[in-house]
Amino acid sequence: MTEMPRKAHDLTPRMTLDDVAAFLAAEFPQIPEDGGFVFEAVGHGSCRARLLVDERRLRPGGTVSGPSMMALADVGLYVALLGAIGPVKLAVTTNLSINFLRRPEPHDMIAECRFLKIGRTLAVGEAELFSRDADPVAHVVATYSIPPKG
Amino acid sequence: MTEMPRKAHDLTPRMTLDDVAAFLAAEFPQIPEDGGFVFEAVGHGSCRARLLVDERRLRPGGTVSGPSMMALADVGLYVALLGAIGPVKLAVTTNLSINFLRRPEPHDMIAECRFLKIGRTLAVGEAELFSRDADPVAHVVATYSIPPKG
Amino acid sequence: MTEMPRKAHDLTPRMTLDDVAAFLAAEFPQIPEDGGFVFEAVGHGSCRARLLVDERRLRPGGTVSGPSMMALADVGLYVALLGAIGPVKLAVTTNLSINFLRRPEPHDMIAECRFLKIGRTLAVGEAELFSRDADPVAHVVATYSIPPKG
Amino acid sequence: MTEMPRKAHDLTPRMTLDDVAAFLAAEFPQIPEDGGFVFEAVGHGSCRARLLVDERRLRPGGTVSGPSMMALADVGLYVALLGAIGPVKLAVTTNLSINFLRRPEPHDMIAECRFLKIGRTLAVGEAELFSRDADPVAHVVATYSIPPKG
Repeated sequence: MTEMPRKAHDLTPRMTLDDVAAFLAAEFPQIPEDGGFVFEAVGHGSCRARLLVDERRLRPGGTVSGPSMMALADVGLYVALLGAIGPVKLAVTTNLSINFLRRPEPHDMIAECRFLKIGRTLAVGEAELFSRDADPVAHVVATYSIPPKG
Repeated sequence: MTEMPRKAHDLTPRMTLDDVAAFLAAEFPQIPEDGGFVFEAVGHGSCRARLLVDERRLRPGGTVSGPSMMALADVGLYVALLGAIGPVKLAVTTNLSINFLRRPEPHDMIAECRFLKIGRTLAVGEAELFSRDADPVAHVVATYSIPPKG
Repeated sequence: MTEMPRKAHDLTPRMTLDDVAAFLAAEFPQIPEDGGFVFEAVGHGSCRARLLVDERRLRPGGTVSGPSMMALADVGLYVALLGAIGPVKLAVTTNLSINFLRRPEPHDMIAECRFLKIGRTLAVGEAELFSRDADPVAHVVATYSIPPKG
Repeated sequence: MTEMPRKAHDLTPRMTLDDVAAFLAAEFPQIPEDGGFVFEAVGHGSCRARLLVDERRLRPGGTVSGPSMMALADVGLYVALLGAIGPVKLAVTTNLSINFLRRPEPHDMIAECRFLKIGRTLAVGEAELFSRDADPVAHVVATYSIPPKG
């Protein structure tokens, strides 16, 4: 199998934050329209994404909902993948596994996303989700299927 | 470890559909208020839940969003657990792993949920999600932590 | 994506138990030589596999080891996949997730394996592992990557 | 829930490598007798473990078997947990999820293990498995159930 070059995280990203914003606006307008996600950094297989937590995202008791956390990890990892392979529309999530570690506080949430492998047809990445503290509130591993070229 | 009685799925559920509706309205009002979930059957560790798919749930191209599918499985499994252990407020999801199997059609989605184990402190269940076809569109395994009594 | 025909489990398997034995002896001789696995039934995407539990497989206290259980599920699912797609040498496991549900007894273990999806490049299956009781001792979900033809 | 102190990885481990060796010899003699695992470092919730790869561990074609990789991650994480909570006999693995990322080379394998959370009754850790290269060959997330004290 033809793998991506080693040490991919040292390489220049194939898309800038502006490229990502333009690509999402054109191809997945529901993401920017949703208004909840901000992409703060993108690298070659990495991304830092923020979930803006407002009333709509909060559960009674002041906790961020599980599906919102999964969505944050999924979009953050997708942007990290774009940073490595460029504007590929049809990459799809095939598996997402989340461990809920601590009760999140009612603040913005940050996902630090990085890929462990980007192969020809499959990519596997992980995301750590943080509230205000140094300890993660959740951990996600997800797999993406990359369509064959041509 | 004190396990639940064997063959739990043959036992009478501890909550009826009406009990579940009243419990959710009192404890998790965001679920009934969301309006998207309908519980069609509840057993002792099992549940059939429906996601009403409307414009809000659809992605461009007519697909149901991944987070909506995760939320359906999670609430369906939670209700299945209520059917086995009764109205326990503090059971929390500790892990959820979803495999996306086929592109869902833009129709209501059904989750058939059942528990594989309900222990004293941990419960593990699975859900198969269906669109209109006989083949599942997604498969979920999730773990719930049950608070100690007393 | 070209999917396998629907209702694959109703179809005739592409390999019989004798075909599977001959294929494994030629391609994966360590599996029959290990002597621990017996394939009792194979269907189109399904398999029942048995782990012969002897002293070598037991842990102190009389429990079957976790890696033995993972290995049973993995080979059982691989044979189930052979039953659906025929003698493909290069299918590889890309993910395996196991939930340990109950302490197994020191007896043979049975894995009931079935595929939830067999796509062109990815297949997802699940296995329930049983000791002597009706309740499963473990549950496995695994993903296999299928090499492109030609 | 009473959590472990924050920044647990900065704390002094509760067991040294010698303590771990003595504990395993007394409680889990099959691990040292197996002879395949070497623990190179232990911290408060972290561990570096090595799998000595010899003929017995190799698959035809010169690859380390999947179950050997799972066993390495599982024992490495167990030792990392001992480093944080001390000699607890009855901690058991409840879930283990492995992603196979690259074909391992026929050399010793290293697992870098660390815990993401160590709670009162549940602990979640991850392990990256390395062959000779800087890129991991596999990634594991596992959950352990910790028995209540007293």
